[in-house]
Amino acid sequence: MTQITIIGVGLIGGSFALGLRAAGLDVHIIGAGRSERSLQRAVERGIIDSWSTSLTEAVENSDIVLLATPVGAIDRVMEEIAPALGPATIVTDAGSVKQSVIASAREWMQHFQNFVPAHPIAGTEHSGVEAGFATLYQGKRLILTPVEETSPEAVDVVAELWRATGAKLESMDAAQHDQVFAATSHLPHMLAFSLVETLHRMDQKSPLLHHTGGGFADYTRIASSDPVMWRDVCLYNREALLASLDEFQNGLKVLVDAIDHRDSETLEQLFTTAKETRDTKVLPTDVGGSNDGDREP
Amino acid sequence: MTQITIIGVGLIGGSFALGLRAAGLDVHIIGAGRSERSLQRAVERGIIDSWSTSLTEAVENSDIVLLATPVGAIDRVMEEIAPALGPATIVTDAGSVKQSVIASAREWMQHFQNFVPAHPIAGTEHSGVEAGFATLYQGKRLILTPVEETSPEAVDVVAELWRATGAKLESMDAAQHDQVFAATSHLPHMLAFSLVETLHRMDQKSPLLHHTGGGFADYTRIASSDPVMWRDVCLYNREALLASLDEFQNGLKVLVDAIDHRDSETLEQLFTTAKETRDTKVLPTDVGGSNDGDREP
Repeated sequence: MTQITIIGVGLIGGSFALGLRAAGLDVHIIGAGRSERSLQRAVERGIIDSWSTSLTEAVENSDIVLLATPVGAIDRVMEEIAPALGPATIVTDAGSVKQSVIASAREWMQHFQNFVPAHPIAGTEHSGVEAGFATLYQGKRLILTPVEETSPEAVDVVAELWRATGAKLESMDAAQHDQVFAATSHLPHMLAFSLVETLHRMDQKSPLLHHTGGGFADYTRIASSDPVMWRDVCLYNREALLASLDEFQNGLKVLVDAIDHRDSETLEQLFTTAKETRDTKVLPTDVGGSNDGDREP
Repeated sequence: MTQITIIGVGLIGGSFALGLRAAGLDVHIIGAGRSERSLQRAVERGIIDSWSTSLTEAVENSDIVLLATPVGAIDRVMEEIAPALGPATIVTDAGSVKQSVIASAREWMQHFQNFVPAHPIAGTEHSGVEAGFATLYQGKRLILTPVEETSPEAVDVVAELWRATGAKLESMDAAQHDQVFAATSHLPHMLAFSLVETLHRMDQKSPLLHHTGGGFADYTRIASSDPVMWRDVCLYNREALLASLDEFQNGLKVLVDAIDHRDSETLEQLFTTAKETRDTKVLPTDVGGSNDGDREP
């Protein structure tokens, strides 16, 4: 029986556990975290078999450790668990930023080759122990970003678990990953958060939010994502995200200037470029089965 | 039998016609527009009974005229049809900007009291004669923005037709309408267009769009909307849209500065405000049955 420790039993960690169980894998799953109440609830929901609020205790004797905390907590967790890891224990994560996590593993882990950086592209706007469900990763992408030192055998072990949850595996360079997701995921989340925050400010001056309907609710769904997780994405993918935001602000300024100057040609050209790009280069959900979930841990 | 002329037999006009027929109304529907081919196709699809490329010919003897063109075409159309309108002919529209359309009607229509400004909050990212379908307006909002002079009887006639298509009716002041939709609909569309255009530029320097998946496709769906329609919204709701964009740019700058300065408190507070606003003040699709469609003509 494989013993797996999951640190952070929320949407991502909990769904991973439930997915493994649904696949019939013979696993003993230990949950670790700060809240005894959440961990107890995770036992009741059948997510974990046992738990500990001591991270070192939770990882001792485990074959595999999954770090499913917000990215900002990973460095502290790494530092704490590193001395308790066995020489063959494989550590993996589910963070939406990869270079900072790799740097932490490199700093703290004695057997860095046993660290397998990973990023499941799946999620919902919900979080916490009640949010996990067994089919979250079905047909969704799981991106591995191993580095030169990473043990291929360790990658295989982690890959097999994710495949059992129904995920489709891809590999990518970690730096490229962070740039691509800054533009295609982190930037859209920033715009959604900022849009809703802007409308909140406008609503306080003159009520308008009660006029919004389902379309607006759909468009802003990702603004209901976990604030702490996204704070950490901003802090840990800072350079790439700032670069994407800068590109966006420049583009938006061109649009605003065109509206200001009643420049109908520029407006039509800009919207046409966007429409053609969206229609031809952005794959819908059911093509290729890939999915850019709204919560990318 | 009621004779109805629809000028612009695309998604909005075509769906209106199909909705009326599905409700079993006894109507003769005349289509008008520039493309004989599209009008012939609209006959084949059972949308219209007959057609003319002469707008004056199309509106003569009609009881009701629906202007379902992009907002930018309405002034020219009004000027052209006004001399051919009978004293009792009711004219209505489906534009997503209301003050400019009302100004055109006031300028050109001899019987301005017969003009009923309206805005169906429904749509898809598709356009043209093939895009219309009978259930587009089912459960969606239809906003009437009558002015002081508007005949209550004319409002009733138009309201009854929209009710037959399944729409839920609301009334709003035209200026308030233009401000509210600038913030809750036109602004989000600008952000979606600008996001996709930005990623198109970034993609040309270093490919990344092939990494996007279904979540990104969903989030940017409204960027596939009709460029001409949205060009016109920018031109005809310019002031309100610029004000909303200005608010957004200020809000985004605060967010960017917080990322730049690694200001984790401001980031968490901003995301929390957005999440709370989204969770408590933005109604999901199935509450109240209202829907802010992605294409609001």
